[in-house]
Amino acid sequence: MRVFDRAAAGVDRVGGLEVARWEQYALGDRLPFRAMWFSVPPGSRSALDRHPEIELSLVVSGSAGIEAGGTVAEVAAGSSYLLDGDEAHVVHNRSATEPLVVFSAYWTPVGSDA
Amino acid sequence: MRVFDRAAAGVDRVGGLEVARWEQYALGDRLPFRAMWFSVPPGSRSALDRHPEIELSLVVSGSAGIEAGGTVAEVAAGSSYLLDGDEAHVVHNRSATEPLVVFSAYWTPVGSDA
Repeated sequence: MRVFDRAAAGVDRVGGLEVARWEQYALGDRLPFRAMWFSVPPGSRSALDRHPEIELSLVVSGSAGIEAGGTVAEVAAGSSYLLDGDEAHVVHNRSATEPLVVFSAYWTPVGSDA
Repeated sequence: MRVFDRAAAGVDRVGGLEVARWEQYALGDRLPFRAMWFSVPPGSRSALDRHPEIELSLVVSGSAGIEAGGTVAEVAAGSSYLLDGDEAHVVHNRSATEPLVVFSAYWTPVGSDA
C-alpha cells in the first residue's frame, strides 16, 4: 500500500490555482490515467481550459461551479463530473469563504491521435 | 459534461457498508477503470477484501484506517491510497461519530490473466 497525503504534496502555482501533479509520486504506468489535485481560492475561478484528455474529477471540499457547454453545473463535495476530450471548461469557486479542492484523473481517449 | 451526484446515487448494502457502484451510470468503456463510492459507519469496518484489481481510493469525508500488510495507515479526507492487486485489506472507520466515505477506482493490471 502507498498513501498520498494531499496536505504534504508539492504544489505549483498555475494562474491563480495551486496544482499538485501526481507525477511527483513517480508511479510510471501503474495507473491508467494521470492525476492531480487542484485548488481554487474563494471567489475565484480557473482560466478557460481545453485539452484532448477525458477528465473525471471528484470534488474533495467546497463546491465547484463547472462551466461547460454554455451552462454552469454546481458539483458538491463528494460528487463528480466528467468532461469530454476537447470540452472547454472553467472551474468556479463561487463561495466567498470556502476553498475549493478537486481531484482530477485524466487520460487520452482510446483511438485518439492526441 | 456529466455530473455524478453522490447524494442521489443508488446504493447496495454489502455487509455493513453502503456501496454505490458506477455501473449505474452506464459509462461503458469510457473510463479506463471501474468505480464506486462506499461508506463505512462510525466505529465499524469492512470485511477483509482481496481482489486482483489494483485500487486507487480517495477519502471523501471522515478518516480511513487502511489495514494492509500488517499495519494500519490513517488516511485523511482529501488524501488517497493505492492497493496492489491481490493485496488483502480492511477499511476501518475508527471515529465514533463521523461517517467515512471513500471513492475507489479499480482496474485489472495490464498483462494480468485476471
